[in-house]
Amino acid sequence: MKPALLIIDMINNFDFTHGEILSKKASRITAPILKLKQNFYQKNWPVIYVNDHYNLWRADIEKIIRFCTNERSNWLLNNIAPSDNDYFLIKPKHSAFYGTALTTLLQQLKVNTLVLTGIAGNICVLFTANDAYMREYSLFIPEDCIASNDDNDNQYALTMMHEVLKANTSTVDNFLTIHT
Amino acid sequence: MKPALLIIDMINNFDFTHGEILSKKASRITAPILKLKQNFYQKNWPVIYVNDHYNLWRADIEKIIRFCTNERSNWLLNNIAPSDNDYFLIKPKHSAFYGTALTTLLQQLKVNTLVLTGIAGNICVLFTANDAYMREYSLFIPEDCIASNDDNDNQYALTMMHEVLKANTSTVDNFLTIHT
Amino acid sequence: MKPALLIIDMINNFDFTHGEILSKKASRITAPILKLKQNFYQKNWPVIYVNDHYNLWRADIEKIIRFCTNERSNWLLNNIAPSDNDYFLIKPKHSAFYGTALTTLLQQLKVNTLVLTGIAGNICVLFTANDAYMREYSLFIPEDCIASNDDNDNQYALTMMHEVLKANTSTVDNFLTIHT
Amino acid sequence: MKPALLIIDMINNFDFTHGEILSKKASRITAPILKLKQNFYQKNWPVIYVNDHYNLWRADIEKIIRFCTNERSNWLLNNIAPSDNDYFLIKPKHSAFYGTALTTLLQQLKVNTLVLTGIAGNICVLFTANDAYMREYSLFIPEDCIASNDDNDNQYALTMMHEVLKANTSTVDNFLTIHT
Repeated sequence: MKPALLIIDMINNFDFTHGEILSKKASRITAPILKLKQNFYQKNWPVIYVNDHYNLWRADIEKIIRFCTNERSNWLLNNIAPSDNDYFLIKPKHSAFYGTALTTLLQQLKVNTLVLTGIAGNICVLFTANDAYMREYSLFIPEDCIASNDDNDNQYALTMMHEVLKANTSTVDNFLTIHT
Repeated sequence: MKPALLIIDMINNFDFTHGEILSKKASRITAPILKLKQNFYQKNWPVIYVNDHYNLWRADIEKIIRFCTNERSNWLLNNIAPSDNDYFLIKPKHSAFYGTALTTLLQQLKVNTLVLTGIAGNICVLFTANDAYMREYSLFIPEDCIASNDDNDNQYALTMMHEVLKANTSTVDNFLTIHT
Repeated sequence: MKPALLIIDMINNFDFTHGEILSKKASRITAPILKLKQNFYQKNWPVIYVNDHYNLWRADIEKIIRFCTNERSNWLLNNIAPSDNDYFLIKPKHSAFYGTALTTLLQQLKVNTLVLTGIAGNICVLFTANDAYMREYSLFIPEDCIASNDDNDNQYALTMMHEVLKANTSTVDNFLTIHT
Repeated sequence: MKPALLIIDMINNFDFTHGEILSKKASRITAPILKLKQNFYQKNWPVIYVNDHYNLWRADIEKIIRFCTNERSNWLLNNIAPSDNDYFLIKPKHSAFYGTALTTLLQQLKVNTLVLTGIAGNICVLFTANDAYMREYSLFIPEDCIASNDDNDNQYALTMMHEVLKANTSTVDNFLTIHT
């Protein structure tokens, strides 16, 4: 059994209220997420993008990236876009488990621990964490790898994921220290 | 409320035992499926492809079509490939409902009746029909729009879908007569 | 289409950290919940208990009530226990949707709006609200009908359900005024 | 990891077309199922009843048994009714997985193989087998432990579960020989 890294909704057009604020916060968590991603590559552990489909309703990663590309998202997409080695799932709603093949993929990859990263911390990451906890996955949700519009909301989500969902919510560096 | 047309696993490489037989049978059901599809376009009803992902685990319609293209599948892919107006979902297992966003899509489209077509009639179509019946959709499964390796298996699946799942299993022309 | 009243985890033994605090808070929300319940009876709208099974793993309402009966729960159970007219579902995890027949029941009852009540507001009620929102139900979650160990957590859950899940989180009396 | 024995819909009122025929066939598979059950007790492996709820919509095993008791079912209920040590889940539809906590229960019991028994072989047992296969359980479906109204339908279901779902469909004695 091994961990998987989930990167949630980072392919994003930030075209919503407070979208510009969230795009800046998303940029700040990009470096820690990429550091984790490199580490997962080295260990041959799976990296799984799970992303909103922007109501395109076609299984088409290129179309989603094209749709999301704009001034706000450009830097982020250049840095965080999935490579051909990464898994890529489309989700129709907030949780990465709802209406997706994530359960099957994790089963086939023999994954029992999820490392959750991405945006928004108090919405899609939290919904995904709740679902993961009900399915009995262990959770690591590095505090420097999730972001929300409002920092208090982000902190509250972290507290809840730590206390209710028993998630480890320390930093990426802490995760890397544990898993050297 | 309206019907949706499901086209199951017709994007196929036929690279399995009896694959050549099934490719020929799939070719024979192509014309009736396309006739239905045109009719759905005219009525502005949704057309939804639900297809195996060939273990690529990337939401990437182009890659799936490329992977499936070969001598056996070429004619079929040229004729039945989805257009940009069609919905396209990837399924990880046999049923179109398992591990997919189909439930959400049908809910948003206000669909209460499913017209099932594709291959194999006694496997992926039957699994999908079972799941649709448990979710209380009405079913129309035209006998000239599904095919299986073995004709007896196909006939048995049709009988079961008619008797157990209360599906209308007459022909495309019968469906078109009812819905003029 | 009509609303259903969900009463979550009120059959409870309160045998956990801060259980005594929560039992007192649960008592305080009992009167408003019963007021709602009477109103639902008058309108012939469904009342659905969804409750933890306390790891008994048997579909046996009497056993669950017997298991939960103690000094802390006694008053509550005498007042809130389901009658023979109420629906009663067992849930294995936090959300009332996870591993239960709730979706099927709501579909058969033609319900499109859920009124959520019970405990704990920031855990099982919130998980249920999230799942209801992803399934596109309208939500009414009266602030005087949910309780959590910590009042700040309860308030935070209400805020989140109002802002993220678009729930109406006013009072029972407000609900009754709208639906006279 | 260990196997679990599923006993499907044997708590039955047989109040439907051909119900009397099926009640007789159900009686004939009772001895082999009970033999299996004893063997599972000896090995401390789980025995799980999954049963229709007869639209009672209450988690109440006693009520279901009372509702089902009649001249046709009496002998069967006396012999096959669950004991207090058995797990008991209610299912709202045909498959034992749909709208139930079965996935969670099997996960907590560390089960990777399902032994399916009960009625009707070509409906609820087959639907359950399909769902189990998509969830990647190994299947043992003893041919002397399932029954259907029509023997040809029963045989067809066995053939399909063997060929499509890779189930072992030999006899109870064969299962016991393998797992001495």
